[in-house]
Amino acid sequence: MLTRIDHIGIACFDLDKTVEFYRATYGFEVYHSEINEEQGVREAMLRINGTSDGGASYLQLLEPTREDSAVGKWLAKNGEGVHHIAFGTEDVDGEAADIREKGVRVLYDEPRKGSMGSRITFLHPKDCHGVLTELVTSGTEH
Amino acid sequence: MLTRIDHIGIACFDLDKTVEFYRATYGFEVYHSEINEEQGVREAMLRINGTSDGGASYLQLLEPTREDSAVGKWLAKNGEGVHHIAFGTEDVDGEAADIREKGVRVLYDEPRKGSMGSRITFLHPKDCHGVLTELVTSGTEH
Repeated sequence: MLTRIDHIGIACFDLDKTVEFYRATYGFEVYHSEINEEQGVREAMLRINGTSDGGASYLQLLEPTREDSAVGKWLAKNGEGVHHIAFGTEDVDGEAADIREKGVRVLYDEPRKGSMGSRITFLHPKDCHGVLTELVTSGTEH
Repeated sequence: MLTRIDHIGIACFDLDKTVEFYRATYGFEVYHSEINEEQGVREAMLRINGTSDGGASYLQLLEPTREDSAVGKWLAKNGEGVHHIAFGTEDVDGEAADIREKGVRVLYDEPRKGSMGSRITFLHPKDCHGVLTELVTSGTEH
């Protein structure tokens, strides 16, 4: 079961400037930041609210660390904007298997490492009405 | 203060098919549907989770009712995908005024009618790092 909007992933050219925009305009602060070498991104998580499943919803601001990363290629094509949306679940492995069974392409054979020690996978946007969709099981890191 | 991710607005060509995709794939059900003549959209709200400010987060699926509506033009240019994101606040008028003061273009002089009796306004995506951003104060309709 998917029990929350975990985050909205937003691609940007300059993470520091974008973080500053969200702070100055709305008062949102950085809750966590990290570099994910595998995904080729520097990221900042802004925590917006708690959720009824005991988790939280974030904005995830993403700057590519290399042009040939998925986010780097996407930015070159689309410019800045919403890159993906993510739903939280207690069981990313089970959900991914169920959804694959329904004929939706799951991009990873096994979930990979996401923000704050989470485990994540992605669904093909062409199978999801144009929306790159992530499934997340939270980790315990902050 | 913006206290939650209120919804993610997703533009689609066929609302019924897209609703069915979200139901069959994830088990998300329609919480509310309506036609907003002013915005030129038919929409379905899928409630995903409750939020720590006493509200909720939704997916808002949008099908244009006419080609010359904002969503119709956006779809013709971009195809299906995430159209906007929306933050919830108790005071859309005050937030819009504060944000306008900071130099971000607010698209309406006064908030207009949104889903379920809410009052909404939009911020110019070029002033928000490519993200069309909505501010919402919830109504009491369902």
